[in-house]
Amino acid sequence: MSDTVTAADIDSLMLGIGRRARAAARPLAFADTAAKDKALRLMADAIDASREEILAANARDLERARENGLSGAFLDRLTLNDARIAGISQGIREIAALADPVGETIAAWERPNGLKIERVRTPLGVIGVIYESRPNVTADAGALCLKAGNAVILRGGSDSLHSSRAIHACLVEGLKAAGLPQDAIQLVPVSDRAAVGAMLTGLDGAIDVIVPRGGKSLVGRVQAEARVPVFAHLEGLCHVYVDASADLDMAKKIVVNAKMRRTGVCGSAETLLVDSAAIGTHLIPLLEALTQAGCEIRASAAVLKVHPGFRPATEEDWRTEYLDAIISVAIVDGISGAIDHIARYSSHHTEAVIAEDPAVVERFFNEVDSAILLHNASTQFADGGEFGMGAEIGIATGKMHARGPVGVEQLTSFNYRVHGTGQIRP
Amino acid sequence: MSDTVTAADIDSLMLGIGRRARAAARPLAFADTAAKDKALRLMADAIDASREEILAANARDLERARENGLSGAFLDRLTLNDARIAGISQGIREIAALADPVGETIAAWERPNGLKIERVRTPLGVIGVIYESRPNVTADAGALCLKAGNAVILRGGSDSLHSSRAIHACLVEGLKAAGLPQDAIQLVPVSDRAAVGAMLTGLDGAIDVIVPRGGKSLVGRVQAEARVPVFAHLEGLCHVYVDASADLDMAKKIVVNAKMRRTGVCGSAETLLVDSAAIGTHLIPLLEALTQAGCEIRASAAVLKVHPGFRPATEEDWRTEYLDAIISVAIVDGISGAIDHIARYSSHHTEAVIAEDPAVVERFFNEVDSAILLHNASTQFADGGEFGMGAEIGIATGKMHARGPVGVEQLTSFNYRVHGTGQIRP
Repeated sequence: MSDTVTAADIDSLMLGIGRRARAAARPLAFADTAAKDKALRLMADAIDASREEILAANARDLERARENGLSGAFLDRLTLNDARIAGISQGIREIAALADPVGETIAAWERPNGLKIERVRTPLGVIGVIYESRPNVTADAGALCLKAGNAVILRGGSDSLHSSRAIHACLVEGLKAAGLPQDAIQLVPVSDRAAVGAMLTGLDGAIDVIVPRGGKSLVGRVQAEARVPVFAHLEGLCHVYVDASADLDMAKKIVVNAKMRRTGVCGSAETLLVDSAAIGTHLIPLLEALTQAGCEIRASAAVLKVHPGFRPATEEDWRTEYLDAIISVAIVDGISGAIDHIARYSSHHTEAVIAEDPAVVERFFNEVDSAILLHNASTQFADGGEFGMGAEIGIATGKMHARGPVGVEQLTSFNYRVHGTGQIRP
Repeated sequence: MSDTVTAADIDSLMLGIGRRARAAARPLAFADTAAKDKALRLMADAIDASREEILAANARDLERARENGLSGAFLDRLTLNDARIAGISQGIREIAALADPVGETIAAWERPNGLKIERVRTPLGVIGVIYESRPNVTADAGALCLKAGNAVILRGGSDSLHSSRAIHACLVEGLKAAGLPQDAIQLVPVSDRAAVGAMLTGLDGAIDVIVPRGGKSLVGRVQAEARVPVFAHLEGLCHVYVDASADLDMAKKIVVNAKMRRTGVCGSAETLLVDSAAIGTHLIPLLEALTQAGCEIRASAAVLKVHPGFRPATEEDWRTEYLDAIISVAIVDGISGAIDHIARYSSHHTEAVIAEDPAVVERFFNEVDSAILLHNASTQFADGGEFGMGAEIGIATGKMHARGPVGVEQLTSFNYRVHGTGQIRP
């Protein structure tokens, strides 16, 4: 498509994509598990077989990205190589090996009048995925949506369009060879930003849910503008609270891991809260462990009184997802103070309590309102794979439908199936 | 509040209500089951004890409604009497007797690294309920939301404001006496329509979900304008498909019940689809049974060929929720034709198949995409009470979060609680 397309052209193009996705979703909803898994395995085979074409397409994207002066981290995410392509096809094969959630009976009961009621998982319908220039998401998201019986509309970053197209061609090859509708996985073929705007309107009812995959500005725009439900987290402002009852060695090990294992992931800790009753026992060893691990500390006034020399934390620090080797540290008045601090600043993603006192753990679990709560474990476990859910399309912090890791099961809905023997309602 | 409030006044009032609801939701989320049930029982007692005040308030509403020339059906819905007030307090006692969904472990598993993961029900947060002039909804909705640990903002029809206020005062009395925050159940104290508009924006993040209760125009406005999730159905355009394998007596009984038991409910049937292979066996007896029951028939051309004399069905008829003793009747090409017709015209609420052939039933259950599917039973069972779920706040046709009857369980979310023994992520 040429660069002279108008807004009306984009609208018309996107509405057509929406209609085809909706049409494809109908047969897909009751497609055999075997057909879906066959399609997925053939997609993986096609990706392996098309490695050269994919690398060539990726080279075009990389060349243009360099010309546009894009940065090292950006280029790294955009870059494909043999190992990464093998990772993509392996990821699809793992999705093929997951259990099919569609058709699963979630609950079943019988009424006194003999009606037998079942609640059965069904696909959601059509999922829109909007992502940045990471070509692997084309395959991951396409495969996960298909596994759950959903049609998907993929809109990748414009800088990865050639790479995404080459991968998408392999996905379509798998669909065709397995006899599934080709429109089950569509890639938006233009790089205009208007295409994103059109998706956010829901394409005239064609999109049931939107999943943004990317940085805060992308997710923020989608959350602010979408007229359909969104599964996402804007940020992971995760807290670790160390209670006076905590085992100190365990606390040091967990705090360092929660912050430093990978600092750029949403489950990394951004704020350490230390019980005021633990100032004399836990605070300094924790600060030293972090410092030794190479972490910068932004300290509250109370922390600085005990251990001067750190950069003072501002109000802004409590609201900042550093995604870097930096942590803010505050003293709180026991579990109540920790709960209050988290209620005020958390992004409701993941929080951990390190404590041996069961009453403290119970309060933390009952009163902290975040998607994932951990006791005596690192916040870096906030991940669908670590939860045993298989691949995830992301982590959601909303409370509706999907909360926490969003895997194939979370990409489904359900309906009620009532088996009667002639019952009428009196 | 005087009638001269400005839009800015309303916005400020509503934002304050939202903030107070959000603040009340926090302690409510972990309130004891015993405290919530005590509050509910005391609310019921207060309603019984305040019968005279409630009737006096209702008399004021009725007087004004009559002055405004409102119709008989409207006045009937608005009218309270001793029996209806007793029904309201009894309804609240039944909600008190339901199991508390909050804190229930929905799933639990252990990971190879020893992490124990639980998925536990939590409240949704703050629910906005927008309803027409039915004073009983004030009590029903307030009690259901409280049971599930949610704060609620109630915005009833302006014509029932005095009645709703009198009932609301009883609810607050119960909250106070049980030591729960009074702001857990707030009634919007003004009748300005701008208050509804403010709620639909979500009150600056204070409202998690909106439940409209009322006719199509109210629900349509809420669905079109809400910037937060909505649990609702716009209409119940329910179908009954009678297969050639159906037992004729059972089919007659179910079709007449599905249409005629109560014609004004969302689960009443609006369209009868008859298998073309059953024209010689089932069609005329079904038409006669409906006619004898006092039902008007709007017939497709194919039906009229077999049985002339009915009013011909237009395209509009297939899209019409009559809510009256009228049914549209079409001949379809077996189960495939039934599935296609339903996919085209259904509101995805409730559909029934009458058949003895299990392959037909299986296709119907797998391929019809509606919240409730019934086999050999009347569509009028589409009701939370009939499902054994206790009181319902409504029926939802969306696929996100709550689908079908929305009872206390559907008014909850969940989170993950991970129990570790010092695990860090490698």
